[in-house]
Amino acid sequence: MANAKDQVIQTTSDLLEAQGYHATGLNQIIKESGSPKGSLYYYFPEGKEELVSEAMERTGLILADRIEQGLSEHREPADAVSHLMYTIAGHVESSGFKAGGPLTMVAMETAINSERINQSCRGAYLRLQGAFQRKLEVSGFTKSRAQALAEFITAVIEGATILSRTFHSGDPLRKAADEVRNLLQKETK
Amino acid sequence: MANAKDQVIQTTSDLLEAQGYHATGLNQIIKESGSPKGSLYYYFPEGKEELVSEAMERTGLILADRIEQGLSEHREPADAVSHLMYTIAGHVESSGFKAGGPLTMVAMETAINSERINQSCRGAYLRLQGAFQRKLEVSGFTKSRAQALAEFITAVIEGATILSRTFHSGDPLRKAADEVRNLLQKETK
Repeated sequence: MANAKDQVIQTTSDLLEAQGYHATGLNQIIKESGSPKGSLYYYFPEGKEELVSEAMERTGLILADRIEQGLSEHREPADAVSHLMYTIAGHVESSGFKAGGPLTMVAMETAINSERINQSCRGAYLRLQGAFQRKLEVSGFTKSRAQALAEFITAVIEGATILSRTFHSGDPLRKAADEVRNLLQKETK
Repeated sequence: MANAKDQVIQTTSDLLEAQGYHATGLNQIIKESGSPKGSLYYYFPEGKEELVSEAMERTGLILADRIEQGLSEHREPADAVSHLMYTIAGHVESSGFKAGGPLTMVAMETAINSERINQSCRGAYLRLQGAFQRKLEVSGFTKSRAQALAEFITAVIEGATILSRTFHSGDPLRKAADEVRNLLQKETK
């Protein structure tokens, strides 16, 4: 039964990433997850808001894990962060520009309309930032500088992903990666 | 009659900025613009896609103008860009986090679903980037460096605006402004 619930949440996350909150209806989620309608209301008695909120939390956990994993592949933050951004660029391209920035649309769409989803989006962004911050701290940046840079990197990745999806090219992400690499290399720890 | 059409486009732009493409229906546009239903179909016989495409073009023109205007207030790009970002932060806050990043949601929502709107969004982003690029070139940056920085600045503003709307605070934009100021000051022209 846990797997059926996970399947619904995963399908929801994918649809939200591709098309956003308002375009994603419960009927499509039911259809694409292969779950009976009843099970959706069984797992999420409060409906779409509850389901989307859980999907955003799950997305935050998965992204933070992937970021941590990706960043661990290089010792220097400049290399680690830029390499991760190149990986994201490839991911956006190979998805046909349907994927990338899995929090962006929902965060914007629900920023002032759903307290519950908004809190989940905030939590998800803080998890991502936390993953960058830890890498920077381990590499010798002070806690406050690591925090500021982590928030900046999160913003850069969000913004460059929007441009990559819009221009149907990973280049905005790769070019932003080169800027971030440059910036981190110049920073005195 | 031109004013009635402009009114519809302006109302559409505002609704798209606040709530995105899918949440914005023609009925709401008709209601909030105070235009009769017939006039909407008269001005935009091809419907929502045509209207949204024109709204995005208009938004790009207005934003590029505002950016150019804002950047002209300071001689040094580091001061000009960071001051502009502080202004955007104040704008996002005073709107109650309904405004900011007027292209973001529509660009993401329509990136692969509407060739026509996608082209308008690309054009709008290129106008914004052009405004930053001109300021940087006039200040002595080479054309290619100005172009790269302009794209990076556009990405940073997009991403920081998402965080500002999500966290209900202008701080992400202001902190990103400080990073950009720092980055531009360090660059050798």
